[in-house]
Amino acid sequence: MAKIPVAVLGATGTVGQHFVKLLLDHPWFELAALTASERSAGKRYGDAAKWYLSEEVPEQVADVEVRLTEPRAVEDAKLLFSAMPAEEAAKIEPVCAEAGFIMSSNSSNFRMDPDVPLIIPEVNPDHLKLIEAQKKQRGWDGFIVKNPNCTTIVFVLPLKPLLDAFGINSVLVASMQALSGAGYAGVPSMAIEDNVIPFIAKEEGKTEDEPLKLLGKLSGKNIEQAPIRISASCHRVPVLDGHTTAVFVELGKPASPEEAAEVLSKFKAKPQKLKLPSAPEQPVIVSPEENMPQPRYARYAGSVPGMAVVVGRVRKDPALKNGIKFIASGHNVIRGAAGAAVLNAELLKAEGYLK
Amino acid sequence: MAKIPVAVLGATGTVGQHFVKLLLDHPWFELAALTASERSAGKRYGDAAKWYLSEEVPEQVADVEVRLTEPRAVEDAKLLFSAMPAEEAAKIEPVCAEAGFIMSSNSSNFRMDPDVPLIIPEVNPDHLKLIEAQKKQRGWDGFIVKNPNCTTIVFVLPLKPLLDAFGINSVLVASMQALSGAGYAGVPSMAIEDNVIPFIAKEEGKTEDEPLKLLGKLSGKNIEQAPIRISASCHRVPVLDGHTTAVFVELGKPASPEEAAEVLSKFKAKPQKLKLPSAPEQPVIVSPEENMPQPRYARYAGSVPGMAVVVGRVRKDPALKNGIKFIASGHNVIRGAAGAAVLNAELLKAEGYLK
Amino acid sequence: MAKIPVAVLGATGTVGQHFVKLLLDHPWFELAALTASERSAGKRYGDAAKWYLSEEVPEQVADVEVRLTEPRAVEDAKLLFSAMPAEEAAKIEPVCAEAGFIMSSNSSNFRMDPDVPLIIPEVNPDHLKLIEAQKKQRGWDGFIVKNPNCTTIVFVLPLKPLLDAFGINSVLVASMQALSGAGYAGVPSMAIEDNVIPFIAKEEGKTEDEPLKLLGKLSGKNIEQAPIRISASCHRVPVLDGHTTAVFVELGKPASPEEAAEVLSKFKAKPQKLKLPSAPEQPVIVSPEENMPQPRYARYAGSVPGMAVVVGRVRKDPALKNGIKFIASGHNVIRGAAGAAVLNAELLKAEGYLK
Amino acid sequence: MAKIPVAVLGATGTVGQHFVKLLLDHPWFELAALTASERSAGKRYGDAAKWYLSEEVPEQVADVEVRLTEPRAVEDAKLLFSAMPAEEAAKIEPVCAEAGFIMSSNSSNFRMDPDVPLIIPEVNPDHLKLIEAQKKQRGWDGFIVKNPNCTTIVFVLPLKPLLDAFGINSVLVASMQALSGAGYAGVPSMAIEDNVIPFIAKEEGKTEDEPLKLLGKLSGKNIEQAPIRISASCHRVPVLDGHTTAVFVELGKPASPEEAAEVLSKFKAKPQKLKLPSAPEQPVIVSPEENMPQPRYARYAGSVPGMAVVVGRVRKDPALKNGIKFIASGHNVIRGAAGAAVLNAELLKAEGYLK
Repeated sequence: MAKIPVAVLGATGTVGQHFVKLLLDHPWFELAALTASERSAGKRYGDAAKWYLSEEVPEQVADVEVRLTEPRAVEDAKLLFSAMPAEEAAKIEPVCAEAGFIMSSNSSNFRMDPDVPLIIPEVNPDHLKLIEAQKKQRGWDGFIVKNPNCTTIVFVLPLKPLLDAFGINSVLVASMQALSGAGYAGVPSMAIEDNVIPFIAKEEGKTEDEPLKLLGKLSGKNIEQAPIRISASCHRVPVLDGHTTAVFVELGKPASPEEAAEVLSKFKAKPQKLKLPSAPEQPVIVSPEENMPQPRYARYAGSVPGMAVVVGRVRKDPALKNGIKFIASGHNVIRGAAGAAVLNAELLKAEGYLK
Repeated sequence: MAKIPVAVLGATGTVGQHFVKLLLDHPWFELAALTASERSAGKRYGDAAKWYLSEEVPEQVADVEVRLTEPRAVEDAKLLFSAMPAEEAAKIEPVCAEAGFIMSSNSSNFRMDPDVPLIIPEVNPDHLKLIEAQKKQRGWDGFIVKNPNCTTIVFVLPLKPLLDAFGINSVLVASMQALSGAGYAGVPSMAIEDNVIPFIAKEEGKTEDEPLKLLGKLSGKNIEQAPIRISASCHRVPVLDGHTTAVFVELGKPASPEEAAEVLSKFKAKPQKLKLPSAPEQPVIVSPEENMPQPRYARYAGSVPGMAVVVGRVRKDPALKNGIKFIASGHNVIRGAAGAAVLNAELLKAEGYLK
Repeated sequence: MAKIPVAVLGATGTVGQHFVKLLLDHPWFELAALTASERSAGKRYGDAAKWYLSEEVPEQVADVEVRLTEPRAVEDAKLLFSAMPAEEAAKIEPVCAEAGFIMSSNSSNFRMDPDVPLIIPEVNPDHLKLIEAQKKQRGWDGFIVKNPNCTTIVFVLPLKPLLDAFGINSVLVASMQALSGAGYAGVPSMAIEDNVIPFIAKEEGKTEDEPLKLLGKLSGKNIEQAPIRISASCHRVPVLDGHTTAVFVELGKPASPEEAAEVLSKFKAKPQKLKLPSAPEQPVIVSPEENMPQPRYARYAGSVPGMAVVVGRVRKDPALKNGIKFIASGHNVIRGAAGAAVLNAELLKAEGYLK
Repeated sequence: MAKIPVAVLGATGTVGQHFVKLLLDHPWFELAALTASERSAGKRYGDAAKWYLSEEVPEQVADVEVRLTEPRAVEDAKLLFSAMPAEEAAKIEPVCAEAGFIMSSNSSNFRMDPDVPLIIPEVNPDHLKLIEAQKKQRGWDGFIVKNPNCTTIVFVLPLKPLLDAFGINSVLVASMQALSGAGYAGVPSMAIEDNVIPFIAKEEGKTEDEPLKLLGKLSGKNIEQAPIRISASCHRVPVLDGHTTAVFVELGKPASPEEAAEVLSKFKAKPQKLKLPSAPEQPVIVSPEENMPQPRYARYAGSVPGMAVVVGRVRKDPALKNGIKFIASGHNVIRGAAGAAVLNAELLKAEGYLK
């Protein structure tokens, strides 16, 4: 089977680098182009990307010329992954979709648009049906699919099986987020050494809004938001990769911590059934240790490294009705960003949206 | 006025060192003895204490001989501060109280005993009235007063004025706790570098139970626990000093974030009125910055360094009824431990319990 | 005595903030103006400076309007402190000197110019005599005095008494430098977390060249460079403040570690004799501890906090003839930058160059 | 070919865990026993080892019962790897060697004994000839081979090709050592957060003495120490794994940095020729980047992860005659300890000492 040619838009940043790494030996996709903004266009990828994943840029891409992000730069590709900043993506993505490209985008623009599927393949694969409406309404040959914010993914993945089993009325979540979430130069060392920064711009809005769409029901051409109340408090901690979240949940009916842990542990969904290449055997791993999950370990957990979320310390919550609380941790740039978009693309392929 | 001679029991550890530092030039108290366990007894304090607050042990105490913790070792003192481990304190404190000493103890034993005042001077100074019952019931000449756990203090201090103004039904709190809370050698660097540890032994129990007593009402010889539901999730982060807490509160009646911030900001209580030496002018400082409080700064906030708690980001909570949420950060070893016990002792003096 | 009005050029950065802090209550100087580049000019200082020394900008300066750096902006001042980037300083300093201002500059430009005094007051106060030549040759009413690079100061301060007592043939130095040396946003946390960066642009050149001038002899209108061979290897480590240097020295004649330590410990120089306000009683403190100096403690060492260098582990060097080796650590932004320039200005005043 | 059964003595600590990891799928060796001291003996390995390399102990060894370290505990094994503390190893190793076991030991005892080969396979494989003398003199059926200290290996590996090409008169080295070198609980986080500790017990002695033996010549039954003067200054920095060294070298004859870099880059030795399983294709990788090697990347460099040393910034040294200086960084627990001992064992096998 010939591989599908893909491009990464915004390939030089932290998320872009993870896209490149995940796609270098992908069984279904092959890299056809890397693009970036004017500052990097025309340079060797090895010079343009301040590569942080290892000492050197992988040699397969080091000499590739970075192209300026625009449709004709990616005409060899069929599928586009976006790691562009939201403002830029908001301009370029519609142009590309109109030109017939299929886009699996990590950029935060358009995520809450009613006709844009916001997808976690284990949570709401059926929302892909919005694609038809999107193409029709917008008159596009191509289309855009989004994955959620990195923090959203880490705590919504374990919420899904709990919702199915017990119902959920409300969720309160406090995050301890990794430095890589802000991009390579996003957090000065002087700001975070021996410190916590209890604020991340726009993050609480995203983590409070996106789950309602993700856990919502497809009804005709629309998503009915899930009737859940969510509150988030987001904090930056001195950790390289891996977002950790403390999650307090008011369930719809009583469940013991043991019952909840079992439901989490047994959770398998469409990506597992379809055996998508980037789908971990267990999307949620429940750790038996009393002091886990810790991001330094959880970040590479799972049969596909970085694609599982590790949950631990499932316990009764004494403040909420039918309350349980737990800790969830996962790799913010893999499961929370680049890997999320790759998994979405694999789902598109498996479901026939991408030929 | 002659100063009151005091001793520090368990003077060599992290909390003990802060006691020594706070008491070196105290206007009311003067150090009469330093004690420790057998491992340190008989040594110079400068040799026994792995001093971490500055390059060298203060010269006033460097040559003091550390005594073995027992009543006769502290007979020159009237007031004893305890920084002993709970197990040890549980044995020694009753002996000292029986022998007539007044104890202001940071050790976690006995905190929930019905006749032991658990005090934050700004929160429940009237609970000192339990002292009479304690002495009578136990047949002691002296008595024991406790301060709460370091994390408890950081978030209960701002809860008090909110409770008075609006009522509180439930509180959920996620902590990001400093390394010093575990003692000098408590957390190996290999465990916490580039990491978060989402577990601290016994901490969630303390932070869920103690506030109910602190915020409870004195009724005769008993404290009626406050009718509040509290849930805590406690986490260790790579920060030297300063516990940060994300607090979600269901108020008894609606209040806007602005109203809540104003109530917090205007909070003054008995220690401020009594002008106790260790009482900060403002026990709760509300920061106007969007990304504060941060522990590296909050740890020394206040007119008495380390004795104020800094609150920031007071905002509406969308998951709780009449919900607000905020961040509170304060020095875990000063306001949360040694300074707390010193302030308690100052209250004892001002209220006539210590002559 | 009326205080001398001073201005800080480049007042918003890391060094500028330390200048402001040191000058707020200075006994001889008073702040008359704060300047910065166009990006900050016209703003309140409290808004323009990303203040990192404490939670809030000191209130005395928070509302001061930052002026654009140019001579007329500082006409109320007599003495100018410069914390400008070298390129900018190279343009503005001559204009200010020509206009009659006296400049005590931390900027790295001009440091090696033959007629510009490069001064550490304890090391080469007599080099101030270059001022006459400078004014004459350049036709300036004012003049410029420089302090050296932050790392240079930390290891040259202890070299001076060793040079005087034993002679020095060669010096090899490996530095472990703090984050603040690169400015607030200079080192991304993603770059340095769990890491060492063994490279700092231009640093090795400065630390190899400047000591030769500092330790050189004034001969007429010139400095004869000291006949010492110096080699430096400079490295960044995850430490907020305080540069630590491992120094290997080939002395001119044999000296035991004890003799060297005694010479270091007894070192007093002109600033101590003149009792300059920023001069520590001991410019070099020799720690007796086997594991000191450590930057977290050494950074605030000395009777004037941050102005002493702490030396430890003085020991025989088996690789060099008459070799000794030691560790020296000091605050890179205080003794190594802002405090250095303030001490230079105090020397200027005491020596009659500044009236 | 049947695999050779091996045991790891002292299997629960940091080095022991790396041994286990490296031996789990080794092509020549198979784990037959894991031993530890009384504290761990009798427990499941999964319970006894505070596993830090990943979230969970590998399942192949989790249920293995840890045995008390003594000869009969390892009678199924032929080859013993030692990660015991030196004091313990000094007692047990002779007993095991007498009992006929072959020992590849990382423990620091006996390293400088004249008849004990201290081996880096790329540096002095011919020193294995000491084995005959050792067995004879001591009357042992087995024998002991040692690898050097972790820091020694990192800087001696690049010294070897320089010595061969240009001669070496003296070496000065400043190390920035990782936390794992002190063992899991060796460095409290309170000691090293925002800090450098410029002292590591006994480390400078080891790194000054061992290279003289390693680089010495076998002469009959003795090693003639290399006529090189070495001085070390050892420092701990907040880095998990990977020792970084700044090395200043006085060569025997002039060499440009480019010539030195080429010699380093082309270095291949016996392990490469023998294609030993743990031998990296290039033992020394020369990085072309101006700011490398950095331990976070260098720690897993090489075709066998963790077994190469990365060198960078080769430059002229202005203080030493024929001087060059460079930075070298490598994984202290792999190339510097467990991997070193495994490579030594592979050399023993390839050279016929282990059948």
